[in-house]
Amino acid sequence: MSTMFVVMTSLAQKPVERIEPPCWWVGMNNPNLQLLVYGKNIASAQVSINNPNIDLVGIDRVENPNYIFINLTVKPDAKPGSIDIKFTFPKGKPLTYAYELKARQAGSANRKGFDNSDVVYLVYPDRFSNGNPAIDQVSGYTDKVDRNEPYARHGGDIQGILNHLDYFKQLGVTALWLNPVLESNQPSWSYHGYAITDFYRVDPRLGSNELYKEFIDKAHAQGIKVVKDMVFNHCGGEHWWMKDVPMKNWFNLYPDYKRTNYRIPTTFDPHASVADSSLMADGWFDGHMPDLNQRNPYLANYLIQNSIWWIEYAGLDGIRMDTHPYCDKHFMAQWCAAVQNEYPNFSIVGETWVNYPAWVAYWQKDAKNRDGYNSNLEIVMDFPLMFAMHKAFDEKDGWDTGLARLYEIIAHDFVYPNPDKLFIFADNHDIGRFQRDSSQALGRLKLAMAFLLTTRGIPQIYYGTEILLPGDDAKGHGDIRRDFPGGWPTDSKSAFTPEGRTKRQNEIWNYMSTILNWRKTATAIHNGKLTHFIPENEVYVYFRHNSEQTVMVILHNGYQPKVLDTSRFAEFLSNKTSGIDIISGNKVENLAKIQLSPRSAMIIELK
Amino acid sequence: MSTMFVVMTSLAQKPVERIEPPCWWVGMNNPNLQLLVYGKNIASAQVSINNPNIDLVGIDRVENPNYIFINLTVKPDAKPGSIDIKFTFPKGKPLTYAYELKARQAGSANRKGFDNSDVVYLVYPDRFSNGNPAIDQVSGYTDKVDRNEPYARHGGDIQGILNHLDYFKQLGVTALWLNPVLESNQPSWSYHGYAITDFYRVDPRLGSNELYKEFIDKAHAQGIKVVKDMVFNHCGGEHWWMKDVPMKNWFNLYPDYKRTNYRIPTTFDPHASVADSSLMADGWFDGHMPDLNQRNPYLANYLIQNSIWWIEYAGLDGIRMDTHPYCDKHFMAQWCAAVQNEYPNFSIVGETWVNYPAWVAYWQKDAKNRDGYNSNLEIVMDFPLMFAMHKAFDEKDGWDTGLARLYEIIAHDFVYPNPDKLFIFADNHDIGRFQRDSSQALGRLKLAMAFLLTTRGIPQIYYGTEILLPGDDAKGHGDIRRDFPGGWPTDSKSAFTPEGRTKRQNEIWNYMSTILNWRKTATAIHNGKLTHFIPENEVYVYFRHNSEQTVMVILHNGYQPKVLDTSRFAEFLSNKTSGIDIISGNKVENLAKIQLSPRSAMIIELK
Repeated sequence: MSTMFVVMTSLAQKPVERIEPPCWWVGMNNPNLQLLVYGKNIASAQVSINNPNIDLVGIDRVENPNYIFINLTVKPDAKPGSIDIKFTFPKGKPLTYAYELKARQAGSANRKGFDNSDVVYLVYPDRFSNGNPAIDQVSGYTDKVDRNEPYARHGGDIQGILNHLDYFKQLGVTALWLNPVLESNQPSWSYHGYAITDFYRVDPRLGSNELYKEFIDKAHAQGIKVVKDMVFNHCGGEHWWMKDVPMKNWFNLYPDYKRTNYRIPTTFDPHASVADSSLMADGWFDGHMPDLNQRNPYLANYLIQNSIWWIEYAGLDGIRMDTHPYCDKHFMAQWCAAVQNEYPNFSIVGETWVNYPAWVAYWQKDAKNRDGYNSNLEIVMDFPLMFAMHKAFDEKDGWDTGLARLYEIIAHDFVYPNPDKLFIFADNHDIGRFQRDSSQALGRLKLAMAFLLTTRGIPQIYYGTEILLPGDDAKGHGDIRRDFPGGWPTDSKSAFTPEGRTKRQNEIWNYMSTILNWRKTATAIHNGKLTHFIPENEVYVYFRHNSEQTVMVILHNGYQPKVLDTSRFAEFLSNKTSGIDIISGNKVENLAKIQLSPRSAMIIELK
Repeated sequence: MSTMFVVMTSLAQKPVERIEPPCWWVGMNNPNLQLLVYGKNIASAQVSINNPNIDLVGIDRVENPNYIFINLTVKPDAKPGSIDIKFTFPKGKPLTYAYELKARQAGSANRKGFDNSDVVYLVYPDRFSNGNPAIDQVSGYTDKVDRNEPYARHGGDIQGILNHLDYFKQLGVTALWLNPVLESNQPSWSYHGYAITDFYRVDPRLGSNELYKEFIDKAHAQGIKVVKDMVFNHCGGEHWWMKDVPMKNWFNLYPDYKRTNYRIPTTFDPHASVADSSLMADGWFDGHMPDLNQRNPYLANYLIQNSIWWIEYAGLDGIRMDTHPYCDKHFMAQWCAAVQNEYPNFSIVGETWVNYPAWVAYWQKDAKNRDGYNSNLEIVMDFPLMFAMHKAFDEKDGWDTGLARLYEIIAHDFVYPNPDKLFIFADNHDIGRFQRDSSQALGRLKLAMAFLLTTRGIPQIYYGTEILLPGDDAKGHGDIRRDFPGGWPTDSKSAFTPEGRTKRQNEIWNYMSTILNWRKTATAIHNGKLTHFIPENEVYVYFRHNSEQTVMVILHNGYQPKVLDTSRFAEFLSNKTSGIDIISGNKVENLAKIQLSPRSAMIIELK
């Protein structure tokens, strides 16, 4: 426990420094809008609006006179245009602020999020490609670029990602999740982006709000969706709020913070103590990231409006919510409902990092929880399957080891209201990379990718997996967030092209690309049922099937070639005569006895 | 797969060999009664009953003419007495069978089962005490006594258990669960009792039906309850049915059996194949134990009536159902409901041997299962907690190791409709014994017993734990079912008395007896809430509390003495001034800083 922020100096110099959200839209489902106005002694101002499109419901003055909240109602038939907000002060001249109400994009409310037909590719913006070296360093931002330092900025940016839309398309992924792109003007470790210092501004070293919007428009033009990483649990210690705190309870345990205990189960454990469950939600994730108190109704409104603002402004397809269970859970349910109220088909996935399926399931929308809690969160992250994958392909197969680990996690699916809405992955920016360097590592990675891309759920791939980018979590997070080779103008080789990749890199790249591009139209994977069979003799077999397509997946974990007798699978094979293994392209003539290569997968489309 | 029973020779010699149930009672809630009648060509008989107490609803003739089923209704105002059942044959003399309808014991329907105020002691009848050497070997029973052979019979019997009711009472347990006592006339391994050859007869080498009833009456007189181990999944290969099978579908996969795959999740996994889930329920648990098909309605009735018969006849307090999930799950739900219909406060615990809380929870009554299944089974076995206990006290404490294993299992309790109705144990007759031989084993066992007897759930202790009876599962089941020293007239030492026990044995015996006898009146343990705190620094602290009592339990897993700062526990300690550690009997004067000995537990009743 320590006091981090001893000196509080007010930032406010002008009567109106900021109004947030910076603009809004007509025709939203929820007509209410609450503006945060920040300015020197703004509480002393009288506020008036004379506009047929809007009703001024009231002004809330709070502890700190440099903040007011203006409650507005946007009328159902409001037209786009500028609203004059007039501030009158006891002394000095009045001030008029032109607040813009914009028109929505056509179809905005009905935008479709990502689903089981998608594969999400996770990109670390600072580490993927430097498309604009001119903004590597920006005046007023102290954390410097140094590519030799794992924790420094490396200069990757949004332009770099935008420049490689063709690469993603060729590889066959259909959606991009970028780690946070908002301003993080922290003195160090700012590259990771999770310590946000301005919730309405893209970090200028990554680009700009306008470039972010352009990137998304261009991605959409290529058929690629974009998922925004959002963080509601905390902000950066250098957030402007910290210099002039709006209210004491804007933050939890402020300023004498304690760390959270990271024990997510205290949020649902019927035996949890008050001390433990309070510290879980209110403790700080890290000393340089003050914990936001979402029970403060002004902050709650602020966060909800902020997310809607980004969806509407930038044209997002989805949100990935960081440290979802660390926020106030009732607020998070309210937030999910508010987003669904505006965008009923939009996608939100929460980072539900717990070890057991029953614990993940607590967080999924419509779970039948004992305590009555409904998160309204449609998509949850399948961390248990990730942990199982890390062990499954290394171990000797036994009752509960090797492939049985995958089987046992999948056999837990009855705990989920909707197991199709699981976000599945072999690794991400916080987990040691799945791929390894050893001679047998390619077989392991191929097995894992075949599984990931054909089992139930929405797969996510971490950038660089397809080129065997190394990364060892034991060496720190920097090591698992290495620069993509060829992403920088000075890089000697480019893994973006076949010529720049090694033979091994091309082997896995082509393997993944083959499955990914086949998957784009494989409806049995998109919406088919999964039926699996108990792993036996180092082989795990399952089927994806709908009325139009049946796909048989065979994962062979053994190190010797083998013939698979398929009589056990008669319920799917009895009316089939042959198949095509979409990985090799070979026809499988004899479905009764299938030849299996060591450490390999087959994905057989049955005829 | 093999054909076990090639030669079928009819047993039936007489026109009426058997009628089962052998008697019944007036005043049952369910007025229906179905008698199985077995006899040579009994299907040819006309059956008539002329008795004001009973209606003959009909006669069902089935595949095998040596069996008929007589459907009766016992009238609501029926009086106890003998019912003449008259069989008239096409040739030969008619036969009259006097079937007895008995009066029920007073209060029979409202008998109270076992609950959280009880501690159940599990006894292997063949291995506890030989009270009647005259019945060690009985004519017509081929499996012999040989105490040097772990898989042979050892001669223990019901009289031996009856002789030691005072021992159980002194120790402080309040209920006895005996492994099966019904006839198991198998050529070998008959001692284990799970291969039953007559569902209505106590094995004559263990005693008789009458002695079993006497034992229960005497146990009740001492305040000790009795739980009967029942087996519905299979019978012994030497069951009389096997010589003259009633119907082809009386058994599953008969006679060309396959083994079950033992994968219980196939019964609830939404992705399970038909092949796997069928084999799970219909495959045989073992080649010498034919799998009963509870979907056969006559067998279903037979089993339900059999269990009610034993409750009523012997005065049972509870049933422990063997291999519960291996039976047809819909029948099992029907069975539980039928028993509850007659005895609403009776207790049934099912052997739900799976590794994860979510899987166990599927089987508990009123679970909100996706597939709508409701087992009606009130008490389930907490195998996950048992596995966690085996590791918790051996490991270095970490995020999910050591004491955190206990914490994580308890933190799963929200998956259960009723976590108090978990049957908890450190080991049983199928699990390697918890106690070990090493010098540090006593601390480990004491920690485990303090935990077991104070956390939520209904504890079960395996016979011999209190005297450090060794047993290593790796050496086979015989080794974990050793004879209780002093149980045989020829034994040189008796562990039933302090004088016959070693110092170490007396240390653990006294430790357990102290907690067990205190527990008898500790209402916070019986019905109090459990609130636990995240384990920290090798210490796990929890409280049991109701309006009249608060108990603080401290488990210290470390090897060094330590002072526990209790400020974290203020929500329970703020209004308390001192306490008594019921293990040592010492007063705890300073609740702010509590001295902890290495590897030890404290159970502090707070004042």
